[in-house]
Amino acid sequence: MYTQAQLKDLVEKALLNLSLSSEASKLTEPIRYILSAGGKRLRPILTLMACNLFSDKIDLAVLPAAGLEIFHNFTLVHDDIMDNALVRRNLPTVHIKWNINQAILSGDAMVFIANECFFHLPPEMLQTVLKIYNKTALDVCSGQQLDMDFEKVFTVTEKQYLRMIELKTAALIAGCLKIGAVIGGAGQKESELIYDMGIKLGMAFQIQDDLLDVYGESKTFGKTTGGDIASNKKTFLYIKAMELASGETLKTLQSIFRNTYHNTETKIKRVTEIYDSLNIKAITENLVHHYISDAMTLLDSLPLGNERKCEIVSLINSLSERNI
Amino acid sequence: MYTQAQLKDLVEKALLNLSLSSEASKLTEPIRYILSAGGKRLRPILTLMACNLFSDKIDLAVLPAAGLEIFHNFTLVHDDIMDNALVRRNLPTVHIKWNINQAILSGDAMVFIANECFFHLPPEMLQTVLKIYNKTALDVCSGQQLDMDFEKVFTVTEKQYLRMIELKTAALIAGCLKIGAVIGGAGQKESELIYDMGIKLGMAFQIQDDLLDVYGESKTFGKTTGGDIASNKKTFLYIKAMELASGETLKTLQSIFRNTYHNTETKIKRVTEIYDSLNIKAITENLVHHYISDAMTLLDSLPLGNERKCEIVSLINSLSERNI
Repeated sequence: MYTQAQLKDLVEKALLNLSLSSEASKLTEPIRYILSAGGKRLRPILTLMACNLFSDKIDLAVLPAAGLEIFHNFTLVHDDIMDNALVRRNLPTVHIKWNINQAILSGDAMVFIANECFFHLPPEMLQTVLKIYNKTALDVCSGQQLDMDFEKVFTVTEKQYLRMIELKTAALIAGCLKIGAVIGGAGQKESELIYDMGIKLGMAFQIQDDLLDVYGESKTFGKTTGGDIASNKKTFLYIKAMELASGETLKTLQSIFRNTYHNTETKIKRVTEIYDSLNIKAITENLVHHYISDAMTLLDSLPLGNERKCEIVSLINSLSERNI
Repeated sequence: MYTQAQLKDLVEKALLNLSLSSEASKLTEPIRYILSAGGKRLRPILTLMACNLFSDKIDLAVLPAAGLEIFHNFTLVHDDIMDNALVRRNLPTVHIKWNINQAILSGDAMVFIANECFFHLPPEMLQTVLKIYNKTALDVCSGQQLDMDFEKVFTVTEKQYLRMIELKTAALIAGCLKIGAVIGGAGQKESELIYDMGIKLGMAFQIQDDLLDVYGESKTFGKTTGGDIASNKKTFLYIKAMELASGETLKTLQSIFRNTYHNTETKIKRVTEIYDSLNIKAITENLVHHYISDAMTLLDSLPLGNERKCEIVSLINSLSERNI
């Protein structure tokens, strides 16, 4: 079995070896920039781990894994335009370092560069994998749309929020796992189980991300703490607090989020205090652990020896503990 | 053999029958909007004609043809943001009717909706077709990049310009033809010949487009006449005029294109007069006919009976005469 570190290394090498040249050299500069800016490489590692669950040989999955990381980074480049995000992985976002037009076009090119990472697969496997990949990509677009829609309304229910992150974040994590499983030779039932596990894992991951934005350490997280509060983003914490708050606390929360608050630091401090008073941190952590536990149960039910599962179990455990 | 009108009808029906639904309903509204705004459907018709050259059965090619039209429309949605174009096919562009973020995201979704139009192909054919499609898409991105790069420089050579339109416009026309040919059962040599013919045709088409922007009738063209002059776009006419002008005429041209000109109508009128004095219209028409003639020569060399070629010959002839 490959260790997580070995798999990350394989992904980094595959990304480095990609021929990202074009006679339109400006097209690929932002692509090299974002791909070399680091990142956990969680998604391609999951692809390779899922492949390795079913097969000792994972060579065939390395390029597709890299392709999925490129797809993920494409969504970051375009989402950062839409969210007007200034910083990503401690560096200026692509549309800030270059401009919006460049970020649109280089992002577009990334989709097709990602596609190329699948074409070496045997034809029948290619067809199966591309169907999964494409459904995943459409889910991610739908999730981003719902996220954008949420910006324009004042109330989002927990259910609506959970469905949005299922599409925007969890679907890709699940798709990455399923694609790895298929390339590793998993049957339909097994690959669907892996997909379901990925959904649970992805839910946990995104809700954890919401938590880290408020309670994480900014250095390890690579973003500024409190950014979601500053931008009135409807995260799980926001939605839960709105649901649980009443009386004066609710009025204060509503007033903070309805009005433009001139001092961002004070705003973050005030909202965090309210979150604390409502026990939001523990509630959110509980939900994360609930999803992690569901993921583990699904993994348990997979008819494979435990020695094959230990790398993925250890990754899931480390995710549930990261940075907090 | 299918007539051009029958093929257009097949494409329109395929586009109408696509299930463009998403639980994020706002995602697909702009997609339905642009796909139902008309257009010549030139690219999918070429796909079907190329298929029909080699096979009497073209069913398999109908959805891929629709997918290529969707891809083309995706490029229009994103290019219109980058060019800040306000009107397309006599309607507001997507980013004007909605907003830039919506145009980015719905455009992205179109790429994956286009992909789905290929997945019914038999696996080996799918692999061959997707490789052509993907190379084409990357060429189009490179072409758009060069086009954007040209905005920032004052001098573009004819050679640079021709290479840019080869990538941005001709590559897609050629790719559409080659994909149709492959689905129709063409061998490698034949499909490459069809591709080369498509490049010539695409060059003629784009240069004709530049010509129509100045000398076309705005109603049939669906854009405002003179738009390229107004926006200082480096078209074939601009580049040729800069090359041929000398003395006072060159100074005037340079001054018009270097400075912001407050009265757009006067600007268009002045530049058109200079184009006329330099015989630019005839020079451009000659180049169009040169490419059309090259395309015809390549088509002639294809070892198929003339009765199979007559629809495509008639399409090429109508393209070389359109609207002027």
